[in-house]
Amino acid sequence: MKKIIAIYGKGGIGKSSTASNIAAACAMNGKKVMLIGCDPKSDSSITLLGGKRIPTVLDVLREKKNVEKEDVIFEGFGGVKCMEVGGPEPGVGCAGRGIIVAIETLKKIYPEYLDNDLIIYDVPGDVVCGGFVAPIKKGFVNEVYVLTSGEYMPLYAANNICRGFNKIGMELGGIICNSRNADREKELAEEFSDRIGSKLIGYIPKDPLVQSCERDGFSVLEKAPDSEIAGVYKQLAEDLLANTDRVKATPLDDDALRELSKKYSD
Amino acid sequence: MKKIIAIYGKGGIGKSSTASNIAAACAMNGKKVMLIGCDPKSDSSITLLGGKRIPTVLDVLREKKNVEKEDVIFEGFGGVKCMEVGGPEPGVGCAGRGIIVAIETLKKIYPEYLDNDLIIYDVPGDVVCGGFVAPIKKGFVNEVYVLTSGEYMPLYAANNICRGFNKIGMELGGIICNSRNADREKELAEEFSDRIGSKLIGYIPKDPLVQSCERDGFSVLEKAPDSEIAGVYKQLAEDLLANTDRVKATPLDDDALRELSKKYSD
Ligand SMILES: Nc1ncnc2c1ncn2[C@@H]1O[C@H](COP(=O)(O)OP(=O)(O)O)[C@@H](O)[C@H]1O
Ligand SMILES: Nc1ncnc2c1ncn2[C@@H]1O[C@H](COP(=O)(O)OP(=O)(O)O)[C@@H](O)[C@H]1O
Ligand code: SF4
Ligand code: SF4
Ligand SMILES: [Mg+2]
Ligand SMILES: [Mg+2]
Repeated sequence: MKKIIAIYGKGGIGKSSTASNIAAACAMNGKKVMLIGCDPKSDSSITLLGGKRIPTVLDVLREKKNVEKEDVIFEGFGGVKCMEVGGPEPGVGCAGRGIIVAIETLKKIYPEYLDNDLIIYDVPGDVVCGGFVAPIKKGFVNEVYVLTSGEYMPLYAANNICRGFNKIGMELGGIICNSRNADREKELAEEFSDRIGSKLIGYIPKDPLVQSCERDGFSVLEKAPDSEIAGVYKQLAEDLLANTDRVKATPLDDDALRELSKKYSD
Repeated sequence: MKKIIAIYGKGGIGKSSTASNIAAACAMNGKKVMLIGCDPKSDSSITLLGGKRIPTVLDVLREKKNVEKEDVIFEGFGGVKCMEVGGPEPGVGCAGRGIIVAIETLKKIYPEYLDNDLIIYDVPGDVVCGGFVAPIKKGFVNEVYVLTSGEYMPLYAANNICRGFNKIGMELGGIICNSRNADREKELAEEFSDRIGSKLIGYIPKDPLVQSCERDGFSVLEKAPDSEIAGVYKQLAEDLLANTDRVKATPLDDDALRELSKKYSD
């Protein structure tokens, strides 16, 4: 029942907040969890580490040849092992390629990482290049989820990402809706999931607690464990752990997506 | 008084909606406007074109050698000239490099593009690589703006982006706050702008009209020109056109950004 999942979705849709809150929820439930942040911003694990950024694999590799586990893997809230791939210096070099280098390094310095019950890859925004689907292509990941809201742009991105998955033969574990308070959002996300042949596995309401805990540097699981939204993440974490469905998604064409979107527009 | 601007900011923060609504506002005001979408998702101009995606430069280049203006530049609402750079096939190849190829193509097929009063580059999420700052590095752009909300993650990204600008010697025209209904968002964005030595040039409230017009395939300027939010975009468009300030921003260090963020957290 080991799980190695990756979370994709439009930039800003909530991949990092969802990944870190789910990681925290599983850890509180006694699971061994690792979170691998693949975004060059290295912001996936900040809220598991009291608001601090950790040294990234690529940064450390630039400084010394023999990276050790202690240099780049840090225990955060609930014992979640956190690692950030990092990126090239802003404005120079290639981000995607770095992911491969970092994961090869991980395998060398911490081969037992596969003993965790849950490994979450938090992957940058959009599938734009070979680099960013590296974790899938290299076979590091065995389940992918796509996050969206009921807004057109995130749905459009989600649909695109599913197209990318198809191209590389990756099946989909499900869609997660992270609300942005759009009209009839859950219904729309449900119909979208259905139409691409998948399912909506979770719905996360928009809750100001997520924003305010983040400003302080924490997940809601740590800072507000008894809140309603903490309960939502706990449930989602359980559902993800229990999920065994995987489908070859069938992305919509542009017109179908527009029609679907319009249908819910008033 | 010609303006060639680029809008940067965290993925999902609203670059494309802001770019297209501002483009529409300027066009309604009699200006000649061009919008260049640099995101591989090619979603910048959709709401100026009644909800339709246009063929991208990179797509057309893959099909034929001699791309013509008509193949890739389309007039949208108010006569705004729209072009989408496009991207590599999802999952394969390099996105950033494509931007350079596309802009070189633009210069060849439509050298008069510089006669527009306003040219807006809508640039992908984050400055992660050489590719995505290509428009700046190549000297195509002479003014940059950064979009953020009052949430920690978008501020963190904005701060990062400013660091990237510094590295390549690019000055900043200003910060725009696109609200996500975070607490005391405008004040926080103002203080952030101030602290990095820049200014908050616009504040866009979160308005469900942006989402619902987008679902139908339109800017709010086209679909709801008399709405309050349309007025906000009109004002912002005027302020951008009139702005002559440019500063070398001084990004905050991690601790200062965290302190600033906490200060507004309750
Ligand atoms: N369910 C939610 N309710 C309220 N705010 C949220 C929620 N999910 C995410 N956010 C906020 O949205 C912003 C972007 O989320 P983030 O996780 O950084 O997105 P991504 O990793 O996909 O770019 C963050 O500032 C976060 O606080
Ligand atoms: N001021 C606003 N009020 C309400 N929704 C907004 C606003 N600005 C942007 N949005 C919504 O946010 C989503 C993401 O915006 P988008 O322009 O695609 O971001 P980016 O181009 O930065 O990735 C869109 O679905 C859009 O409708
Ligand atoms: S393959 Fe991807 S990550 Fe690498 S340079 Fe190209 S766009 Fe960047
Ligand atoms: S391959 Fe991708 S990440 Fe690398 S320079 Fe090109 S656009 Fe940037
Ligand atoms: Mg993220
Ligand atoms: Mg965009």
